Amino acid sequence: MIVSVYHGDMQHKSFGEMPCPIARSLERVGEWWSILILRDAFAGKTRFDEFRESLQIAPNMLSRRLATLVEAGMLERRPYSTRPPRDEYVLTERGRDFRTVLVALLAFGHRHFAVADGGARIVNTRTGATVEPTLIDQDTGEPLVEPHYMVVRGKSAAAASTARPKYGSGLLAAAEPPHRDARTARA
Amino acid sequence: MIVSVYHGDMQHKSFGEMPCPIARSLERVGEWWSILILRDAFAGKTRFDEFRESLQIAPNMLSRRLATLVEAGMLERRPYSTRPPRDEYVLTERGRDFRTVLVALLAFGHRHFAVADGGARIVNTRTGATVEPTLIDQDTGEPLVEPHYMVVRGKSAAAASTARPKYGSGLLAAAEPPHRDARTARA
Repeated sequence: MIVSVYHGDMQHKSFGEMPCPIARSLERVGEWWSILILRDAFAGKTRFDEFRESLQIAPNMLSRRLATLVEAGMLERRPYSTRPPRDEYVLTERGRDFRTVLVALLAFGHRHFAVADGGARIVNTRTGATVEPTLIDQDTGEPLVEPHYMVVRGKSAAAASTARPKYGSGLLAAAEPPHRDARTARA
Repeated sequence: MIVSVYHGDMQHKSFGEMPCPIARSLERVGEWWSILILRDAFAGKTRFDEFRESLQIAPNMLSRRLATLVEAGMLERRPYSTRPPRDEYVLTERGRDFRTVLVALLAFGHRHFAVADGGARIVNTRTGATVEPTLIDQDTGEPLVEPHYMVVRGKSAAAASTARPKYGSGLLAAAEPPHRDARTARA
């Protein structure tokens, strides 16, 4: 199910119909509350009241977000009590796979929008150092930068050397992405 | 500036006031359109009309999202023409630092919500293999799993060995996070 969400002042175009995997993920799990629900699920929360207490979210909104995450295959709903009938929500394999996005968001937030006491951060427990997470190719251990890595479209291996999708190059550029130089235009 | 956004059927609590860096990032750049604007900025798009054409977004919505991203320090607005006066929007250092989140989202979206032809993916251009990005500690090259890595709160190094924030443990757990076993409860 892809729901069209009333979002700000307009009914937005369904991102789920776009081919871009970023847009498709946002359609399914991109809503802010959903991401915080997933964060809490990673912390072991499973019950409606636990999420509600943690997030201070309206019950009808929480019900809807949980249903969307179940529908998207990120959470599984299952009974933990028959009398009274009660369900809990646990991360599926797909939901657990969202971990990388959450860790990347946590590190980004700590670097740029930390609260006064530093807030949450990832540390190396042996040294106490704050960790800067970086993405590598799991197979080779290499950083994901061009020209050895590229964003391509399509299934074939040949696509790797030919396709240049619109959002490919800048995302894996090692150096500053190519922008028009405003200073030249101003001169 | 932290704007309170009308979101679905309720005025949401400002995530920017929460100490969690995930929530704080979502408050500032979490809105779906904003993330797609950043994606397009990485692809080298800088001009209002380029973003509008790529995203098929209403001009008033686009203006507002661009202003929010400038306010959050993710984009810089600068003139590229004086006659007529025209501005462009370029990624700041902070904006470029969001790259990790976008790459993680792209890989997640490809794994779980790909279109029929496979859609966009990251490939190793030497082998054609689809890349599974994984997060490591930039300093040590080690994967971010407990017990060597942990999410803690506060500035001190000592916090690393004592604090256990609510969303810490599951996020960096190597194995499946500890959930209550519904099967036991059902029996």
